[in-house]
Amino acid sequence: MLYIALLHYPVKNKAGEIVTTSVVNMDFHDIARAAKTYGVQAFFIVNPLEAQKKLASEILRHWQEGYGSLFNQKRKDALTLVRLQDKLCDVVEEIINETGKKPKTVATGASLAGRNLKHSELKKKLKNDKLPYLLIFGTDSGLAPEIIEEADFILEPIEGVEGYNHLAVRSAAAVILDRITRD
Amino acid sequence: MLYIALLHYPVKNKAGEIVTTSVVNMDFHDIARAAKTYGVQAFFIVNPLEAQKKLASEILRHWQEGYGSLFNQKRKDALTLVRLQDKLCDVVEEIINETGKKPKTVATGASLAGRNLKHSELKKKLKNDKLPYLLIFGTDSGLAPEIIEEADFILEPIEGVEGYNHLAVRSAAAVILDRITRD
Repeated sequence: MLYIALLHYPVKNKAGEIVTTSVVNMDFHDIARAAKTYGVQAFFIVNPLEAQKKLASEILRHWQEGYGSLFNQKRKDALTLVRLQDKLCDVVEEIINETGKKPKTVATGASLAGRNLKHSELKKKLKNDKLPYLLIFGTDSGLAPEIIEEADFILEPIEGVEGYNHLAVRSAAAVILDRITRD
Repeated sequence: MLYIALLHYPVKNKAGEIVTTSVVNMDFHDIARAAKTYGVQAFFIVNPLEAQKKLASEILRHWQEGYGSLFNQKRKDALTLVRLQDKLCDVVEEIINETGKKPKTVATGASLAGRNLKHSELKKKLKNDKLPYLLIFGTDSGLAPEIIEEADFILEPIEGVEGYNHLAVRSAAAVILDRITRD
């Protein structure tokens, strides 16, 4: 059972400072469509700011219940997977309430070297474990150190050729889901 | 040797009509970053409209030479792969001029069933053939029939769970590049 979360706080900006980022409409669509394609249970948008949550919920309402849901049923199917939360701990709590089990958390990032879980290992765990898993993605320049340190696992980065691996989070989410769920 | 092209004409809209679509800033960034990550030679944005090409070239200049190139070197590295062309035949001609060889063209799409080239087969061809390959992606609801019919190969679609496979073109491009280039 696989969940994913996209964090807007706490994340790093290009200078390495901890910031809160704004929600990006295309993140909702692209990652929700990948989540639906690869059988993810829910996609959590995590942002603690009231104004940002209001904007996010208006976008979601358009596609889940408003004109968007009539205009494009496939898009509705994907965006119905999206839920909003303030903080990562609230996401974990929601999954516990839903499944009765504490999810294993898996931090992702392009620059995470070291004690990494391989994509193939996560794939096996998803098949064999009876626990829910929560894949955590960061916006801007990636997850804050505290999120990475507290995660149960750190996923290996997607390696590019000649050391370039700066995928958009939307692309990285799709590639990781493809690698860890495909038979 | 792998090239990719994103067509804004001729493509289908949701009603199946042949249309020209507008360029989308995030397509440039996401697909260019995936192209750079996976070692693609060049990423062609194909749009016949003068106003659209003007907008596209302004975006590119910002990242290739303007302030963007100083602000974010990694983004510059990716967007330097992007080139503009009017029509698919111009792209093919440019590849012939560059390599001395006619590229094999590969159409992509979510709903292309039938005589398909598997991702694993394309991967083998890329390794063993001495020819350039050109992967063709469509915007909106996908490539027009004439583009598909004239392509040398049609790539198998990315299959989702429960028949849902409506990835964004940005996500589909990343997943396909991952599948056909990764060792």
